[in-house]
Formats: sequence, structure tokens, C-alpha cells
Amino acid sequence: MMKQSKILIPTKKEAPSDVEALSHKMMVRAGYIYQISSGVWSYLPLAYRVIRKVEQIIREEMDKAGAYEMMMPALLPSELWKQSGRYEAYGDNLYKLSDRNDREFVLGPTHEESFTEVLRDSIKSYKKLPLVVYQLQDKFRDEDRPRYGILRGKEFEMLDGYSFAADEAGLDEAYQQQAQAYRNIFDRVGLKYKIILADSGTIGGDNSQEFSAPAKVGEDVIVYTDGGYAANLEKATSKFSGVQQTAEPAELKKQATPGAHTVDEAAESLGIDASQILKSMLFMAKMGEDDYQPVLVLMRGNDEVNETKVTNELGCEDLEIASEADAAKYLGAHPGSLGPVGVGEDVKILADNYVKVLVNMACGANDDGYHFVNANIDRDFRVDQFGDFRNVQEGEIAPDGHPIKFTNGIEIGHIFKLGTGYSEKLGAKVLDKNGRLVDMIMGCYGIGVTRMLSAVAEQNADENGLVWPDSIAPFDVHVIPVNAKKEEQMKMANDIEDQLTKAGYEVLVDDRKERAGVKFADSDLIGIPLRVTIGKKAADGIVEVKIRKTGETIEVKQAELVNTVGILLKQLADQSVDDK
Amino acid sequence: MMKQSKILIPTKKEAPSDVEALSHKMMVRAGYIYQISSGVWSYLPLAYRVIRKVEQIIREEMDKAGAYEMMMPALLPSELWKQSGRYEAYGDNLYKLSDRNDREFVLGPTHEESFTEVLRDSIKSYKKLPLVVYQLQDKFRDEDRPRYGILRGKEFEMLDGYSFAADEAGLDEAYQQQAQAYRNIFDRVGLKYKIILADSGTIGGDNSQEFSAPAKVGEDVIVYTDGGYAANLEKATSKFSGVQQTAEPAELKKQATPGAHTVDEAAESLGIDASQILKSMLFMAKMGEDDYQPVLVLMRGNDEVNETKVTNELGCEDLEIASEADAAKYLGAHPGSLGPVGVGEDVKILADNYVKVLVNMACGANDDGYHFVNANIDRDFRVDQFGDFRNVQEGEIAPDGHPIKFTNGIEIGHIFKLGTGYSEKLGAKVLDKNGRLVDMIMGCYGIGVTRMLSAVAEQNADENGLVWPDSIAPFDVHVIPVNAKKEEQMKMANDIEDQLTKAGYEVLVDDRKERAGVKFADSDLIGIPLRVTIGKKAADGIVEVKIRKTGETIEVKQAELVNTVGILLKQLADQSVDDK
Repeated sequence: MMKQSKILIPTKKEAPSDVEALSHKMMVRAGYIYQISSGVWSYLPLAYRVIRKVEQIIREEMDKAGAYEMMMPALLPSELWKQSGRYEAYGDNLYKLSDRNDREFVLGPTHEESFTEVLRDSIKSYKKLPLVVYQLQDKFRDEDRPRYGILRGKEFEMLDGYSFAADEAGLDEAYQQQAQAYRNIFDRVGLKYKIILADSGTIGGDNSQEFSAPAKVGEDVIVYTDGGYAANLEKATSKFSGVQQTAEPAELKKQATPGAHTVDEAAESLGIDASQILKSMLFMAKMGEDDYQPVLVLMRGNDEVNETKVTNELGCEDLEIASEADAAKYLGAHPGSLGPVGVGEDVKILADNYVKVLVNMACGANDDGYHFVNANIDRDFRVDQFGDFRNVQEGEIAPDGHPIKFTNGIEIGHIFKLGTGYSEKLGAKVLDKNGRLVDMIMGCYGIGVTRMLSAVAEQNADENGLVWPDSIAPFDVHVIPVNAKKEEQMKMANDIEDQLTKAGYEVLVDDRKERAGVKFADSDLIGIPLRVTIGKKAADGIVEVKIRKTGETIEVKQAELVNTVGILLKQLADQSVDDK
Repeated sequence: MMKQSKILIPTKKEAPSDVEALSHKMMVRAGYIYQISSGVWSYLPLAYRVIRKVEQIIREEMDKAGAYEMMMPALLPSELWKQSGRYEAYGDNLYKLSDRNDREFVLGPTHEESFTEVLRDSIKSYKKLPLVVYQLQDKFRDEDRPRYGILRGKEFEMLDGYSFAADEAGLDEAYQQQAQAYRNIFDRVGLKYKIILADSGTIGGDNSQEFSAPAKVGEDVIVYTDGGYAANLEKATSKFSGVQQTAEPAELKKQATPGAHTVDEAAESLGIDASQILKSMLFMAKMGEDDYQPVLVLMRGNDEVNETKVTNELGCEDLEIASEADAAKYLGAHPGSLGPVGVGEDVKILADNYVKVLVNMACGANDDGYHFVNANIDRDFRVDQFGDFRNVQEGEIAPDGHPIKFTNGIEIGHIFKLGTGYSEKLGAKVLDKNGRLVDMIMGCYGIGVTRMLSAVAEQNADENGLVWPDSIAPFDVHVIPVNAKKEEQMKMANDIEDQLTKAGYEVLVDDRKERAGVKFADSDLIGIPLRVTIGKKAADGIVEVKIRKTGETIEVKQAELVNTVGILLKQLADQSVDDK
């Protein structure tokens, strides 16, 4: 029996003025969340009810997928993270602390190491594999720029799962089961989402998928088509549509371009189109411990370098834009004046496929304030390797033959075939069918639980407040006696609460002695799927049902209410499926 | 459908040799828990199933008590803890860390401050009160001596709840509801426990209760009687049974007692009974900021000082045994030679009631190596205040008229009327019925969730392994086909799993192709209430049911199994109630 007068729902007329995202604004105004510190939130009772419903859906789907729940500590010994190499690699995002005896710990942002350790000490034979374990847990990440409420915070709840297999077939079985479970979870939660090809580093193959919910405030660019293709920008490719230019090669000339440091400035100074200018960027590729290789990447002036594609081509550990000092050392100029002409063999030169068809390009002259015009491949400069090193652009043709579209997305899930990296480093081996010791092959799987609330709110909220899909709404029905001081209205509210509760619905009764306008506004803010208003017609046994999502209202006799609620909630669920 | 071959249950023949507690040993051996670091544990799938059942019971009872669940972050700004004064007071037990911008945080061991802050900013009027909020959350405590497995760890799950009221009646209402909920929870979990009066500091009154589970490894001493009296040692009192001694006061004499620093040494040196010697202990009582009062406490040589009682009498913030320097400064001797004779007015003298009836006592002479004999109250020394300042002893008569017994106990819960301390410090006020701003009156309530597993295991485990009450057992029934290679046995196991699952029971099937002895031993270790063995008589449709707790076995036809399981589980639950 949930009475609004006794539950903590501190609704507000206004959100702080610096709040940008709709989900953030409405969750604060509706009394769902409270900020304890920048990026650190408290989930008030309504938000926590939503979280619990999401958790329940996750648990049911993990059960079906044969995964077992367990729980790791948040406090993890630094030693374990040093063994995996992530203690350094994770950088400033990792919270570090020491205990009273100066032993060092980190607060877990993910748990690959600790699961690998437990499995290493627990499983000795392939007979127990494949095996999937998961947890629903608060994670910690020292975010540089926490924002959008609980969308990007320093402490947040995640589902993180890990599969262990003795062979590739076992890994694939677990991966496919998890992929199916993830689809089921996001479907049931009522999210619109795209499954996108994600970059999987140097491993290659289709072994990584992201689940992304389209939303204006999403921080990822999703590349997709109406044909079903979807990839993130790092991974997306398009059909090559370059046409060989046919002009005669002209004489290479050096021209002064004072103050022209960008492609656009150079284009204006030289009076040519940006697409005819070579964008030349020098990177330092980390090939190993203290082993850095300078790499010059060339592309059309109107294209963007895709560092992930370059990284994968080079097979390097890390790729950084060269410092001014490195640019001066290897090319003798500032970054705004670099180009390929005259570059020595010590610098590797990669060029995007679209460069191959250009004739008489302009490029930096490796001499501050000067550009070359009429530069041509082979005649004037060397290219070591052509390839796809650029970001795709909207309108290009995707591999599926359809034109590419862009949208912003919130990453809500990620599944990934990890391989044996952690197993090797931590010595997690099992005996395979042939009695040989082999490294366990891992997969890792994650869903942002609290972030999912933001995603759902972004997709569904309107200017009046939140709108929850019934599957995760804090309550199914919001019962509002217009005047709680009138005994007959409160009696009817209590009766209706009883009826609906017995029928299996969760009901919140607004028993507050507030004005009707305040109660209706709060109801819209809170976003429960159905509102039952008990007003003047209560005497005739008639109430009004309002559908939060559409604003439609219908009058119903009390005797028909349970039935009507069932029909309306079913219709809403069906519509939500149709919308996808 | 839970098959043992695919669930992570790494049973072990041996626990590490340094393991002391039975619960610790058996939880490690049965594959329930894995130590990630000293005092930091991972809960493997079986343990997590038990935890989830405990959580479910807690949620149901909190619901009934009208409390709402929410969730605070573990990362709390240090600033908030400085405001409440606990940043220093909590000492080394508090984990402290800084983020990338050098902002300071603590990892929450409890959450009084943050709940007070949220309520302060959310509730303005008494109309919303009383209100109870709670969370089920991992807590952090930098334990100096983590031990007994998950009984005393650095990261552990707790239920912590907080009530807020506008007046004492509201506080009492919430407190009583929580007390009832706690009793229901511990009853349902199947624990034997005692509700004991706990010290509530200087507030006075019956406003604090501890729930303690008797167990050998318990770190608290519980004082109780068969009449129902129970208190912790700090709080326990007994009926005064002293008899006025009738000897004539003799002449005060100073005697050399070389090398006698303890009561026993003095008794031997003087040839008298320890009960005739005054134990004289000098304390420094902190009355305020930089305000310390020396206090000499006198009691019979065979009694122990109860510092909590002394603290409450003095109303001081803190009580410390005086240093050698302070003993020399105020009494002119070492701590082993102190006494009340000749002590000036600057030292307050408290004496236990049992001192009042003594005649011709011996006591330290405030002169190293000397004692007085035949010291008498008033004639030879002053007493400023008599009172009950000692620990009770076994066999004494409790306030309820029954003889006192001692047992060790594990503190599993605590409820406490906090008052307005936090509200005052953080400015959490509401308007009361008369329109006046008043401090919210708080109560706080806590249950150690993971610790409860240790308590249940301590009370129920035997030399073969764990024994779980059915209400929180990871499964209800353990189905064991003796030879999983035999198709007929596996088929029957699967049939039985289906039948029992449909009847609402949770079933674990040991489908491993291990020897029967291994499977039976593991089954005893894991401690599921009922074991169904499918062996030779399977061909006749007969299985054996074994009750883990008693070891009894019965043969049952498969057709009768569901029925039998229901009856046996009900009997076990009833016995558990009778046992209390």
C-alpha cells in the first residue's frame, strides 16, 4: 500500500539552470535522483524502483542464458591490476587508495582481473566450460567530465558478465547466448536501440557489438542505414566512390601561404577546393615498450582521420598525435605546415584510398608558411601504404548498398570476445579434451544499468516530465483523488488501490491534501503509465483514466477499471514494439 | 534448470590451516566464498543465492513496516563527514581517497550524514513524517583485524535504515515498527538470537537494542537469564547483594608490598582476599574541547570496571585510562600503587556500590611499593559518588530475578534512537504542527547482511559442512543421480527436477560424472536442506530422501516425492521455531 504522503518524492518546479539533458532535468524535477557530489548520485525511492525492475529483467534473461550471478568486491588489490597491465593503462579514470597498512587498492571500474583470478583457482577442466558468470554492481570511474545526470557519473551500476571457454566454439556459444539475452533485455525495457559493429582492436572479425540507444545527448555517433547496417564511427566503412582525376600533372611549385595553418585557411589562400588539399597528420605510434614509430597520415582536406583504422593497420598499442617537438624533429616544421614531399624513410607514410585518385594536390611544404601545389604521388612523394583511414560521411553508400545516415547514440551495452589476454597474464589455464593445458578463452559483456534509465528517459520524456514504459515504471497506476479531504474520494481511492493490487498491479495513491493542479503536474512529472483520477463523478462510480504517453483520457466505471487497466497497458506495450 | 556441472561451486577437501571459525572453514570448503584480499571477499553463486534470499526477506519486512528502499553512493564527500565531526572520530577505520582533482572522499561505512542531507533538502513539513528510508548496500571499513571469513571484513553488505520524525511520538512509532520488522527478519532467516539492551550513551532510556546471535566465535559477551533478561556487558546490571561488614574499624597502617603491582599480587603479599582490596583506577575524562578531569574509580579487587557506566555517570565525551605521567602528576605514584587515601579535591572519586559495605580495606598508598591496610570510607578517604560502575558476573541475580548467564554472541542487528545530533549539525529542520522550525529527530537501524550468513552457518554447520534453513538455502532440494553416466538415472533426475520446479521448489541436480562418494560429500558440504538420491531402486521408481540437518533418510516413490518434500520442509521450519 503506497501512499504518496509517506514516500520520498521531492518534486521540484525547476531544475538547476546548468542542466542540459532532458532526462537529467526531469529526473531531478520528478524527485528521482539527488546529487551528492559532482557525478555522484543518490537514487531516491522512485528511481530505485525502476532500477530494481531493470535488474529483475536482467536476472531473468541471464537465467535463461545459463549465466550465474555472483558478487565481487569493489575494493581490488592494485597488485592484480599491475599484473594485467591495466593499473597504468587505465590512467586517471582509476580511483586509487591505500589502507591503514599502506596496502594499495583500486575501486573496480570493471572486473576482468578478479573474475579471471577466481576462475583460475576454481576450474581445472574443460568439462565445466563454457561458463558465464555475472554481477549487478556499482562501478567506480573517476570521470573527468561527469554530466547529463546519471548518464555519465563517477559511481554507477553495471551488469558485467564474463564467459570462460576452453575453445573458440565454447566462446562463440556463450557470446551468442549473451547477444540474445541482451536483445531480450533491451526489448523488454522498452528501449529503441541499434546493434552496431564495434571496433575490436587488432583481433579482427565480428567479435564485438555495441548496443546503442539513439538520443540527442548521446555521445557516440551511430552510422546506420535503412537496410540494417549499423556501426560506430570508428568501425564504419563505405563503398569507395573515388574517380581518378584526369588532369595532366603540372609542375611542383612552392607558394607562400602566410598564416594558413588549417586546411580551410590553405584552401582560401591558394584559391582551391579543400578536397584538393592533402591533410597531413603526423602521429607517434607506440609499437612496444619505449618503441615509437613516426607515421604521416595523408587524406583529402575534407576528410577526417579515423585513428582506430590507422591503429589497426599499424597493429600498434597506442597512437598519439605528434608533439610540436616531434613534428620539428622528423619533418622540420610546425603541425600546420606538414606534408609528404621530401620525407625520409624513417617516417612511415599512410594515405587514404581517396588520395590515390588525386592529381595536382596542394600540401604543406614542411616549411612554416609555405605550401606546395601540383604535388603528385610517386613523382613528388612516396606512399608506403594505401587503405581506408577516414571516417565515413553521411550520404555515402554503406556495405549493404544503402545510403549512410548518422545519429547520436547512448552506449547501453557492449559484448566482446576478449580472447586469452587476461588468461595469459594471470595464468588461467584448463585441461582441454586432449589433456593439454590451454589458456581459457574469455568474453566480456556489459550493460549500463543506471545509464539505461537516462536512455529510456531521453527517448520518452516530454516537456511535462518523464514517461516510463510499463515494464520498468515505478508503479503501473497513479490513483489521484482530486480532493483528498473528501472522505468519499479517499475511500474510493483505497478501494481502487485494493482492487488493482489484488489484480497484480502496483499502485501509488496521491493522498496528499494538495491542490488538484499540483497533483496532476506531479503525476505528469513522475510519469507512471496510467493515471486514475477520482473527481466529481466519483459519486456515480465513474473515474477518469489518463494515458501518460498520449494524454488521452477515457471515463470508466469503477467495476470496469481493472479490466480497462489491463487492456490499456497491453496496448501500450504493443505500441512500444511497433515503434521500433 | 540448474545443473551442477555448469555452476561455479569449487568445493575443497581442506580449508587453509589458519582458518579458525567453523563458518569460515565450511564456506570456503563448500565453494561459497573466495578471498580476493585479506578481509575482502567474492561471493560465489551459492553464497549469492543465499544473500539474495536474505535480501528478499528484508525487503518484504521493510515493505510491511512502511519503509522505502533507495540507494546512496559509496563515494561520499569528506566535507560532509567533517560537518558531522565523524571524519576525525571514525579514525583509521575510514577509507579516504582523493579524485583526479584532489577532491577528498570517504567510502561510506554508514550513511547518517548523506541521508540527513537528502532529507534536509527534500522535506519541509511534519506532514511527510515520520518517514523511514533504507538501503541494502556494500559498506567499507578499514578493519585492523579482519577475520572469521565474511564475519568481519573490510567490505560487507548491510541493511541500513534511517527514520526521520518531527516529534518523539513519531520517532517511537518508527522505532517500534523497525524493531518488529527486525524480529520478523531474524525469525524468518532461521537464526537463534537474543534482543539485548544496549548502551545508548548519555541519552538514557530504552532507546537502543542489539540483536545478537549466540555463537562460539561471537565477539560480544551477552548477559542473559532464563527469565528473558538480556543485555550486553556494558549495559547489564544485577541486583545489589552486598552485605555490610561488621568488623570494628582498625588502625590505618602503611605496609611495604614490594613488587606487588596487581590486585592478586597485593592480596598475596598482604595475605588477604582480593575482595577486601580496593582496585583503584585513575581515568582522564574528556568533558569538552581540551577539558580533561582526573577521576579515580574504586571497586572491589575481584570486580571489573565498566567504563561505559562510568562514562554515562560523568556525562563525558570520552574516558581514557590515565597515563603514567598523569598518575604521577595527580597521585604521585605508578598505576600499580594508587589508592584514595589523601587524594585532593582536584581528583573526583567514584566508588562502586559494593565498596560501601566494606570495612578495613587494603589499597595502594600512592607511594610505589606500599599499600595501606585497614582503610575505611570517610575516616581515611573521601568518596564523591557511589554507583553501579562494575561489570556483572555470572550467577548474580538479574533485574528480572533470575540468575545471570554469559554467552558469546555475533551482533547481527542494532536499532537506535539517534535523536537530533546529525540534524543539528547539518541543519535538517521541518515545520512542526505549530508552524515552528524544529530539528528532525532521527533513528538509525542496521543489519549485517553478509555477516548474517556467518551467524547462520556458525549456529547450524556440523563437521560435514553447512546446514541452511530452507528459507535462505541456495536451493531447496539437491538431486543426485548416483551414476550420471546411466541414462535412466539422469532421465529420472531431470523428471524429478521438472516435477519439483513446477511445484515451486528450487532444485540443483548433480549431473557430474563423479564418484558417488564425492557427490555425497559435496552435497553435505553445500548444505541444501533435502537430498534426493537416485540409485539402484530407481528402476522400481523409488528414491531416497535425506534430511541434511538430522541425517535421517527415507525411501519414497517418485509419485509421492513432491508431497514428501513439502511435508519435510514444513517440519524443518516448525522445528526451527521450536528450537528458539
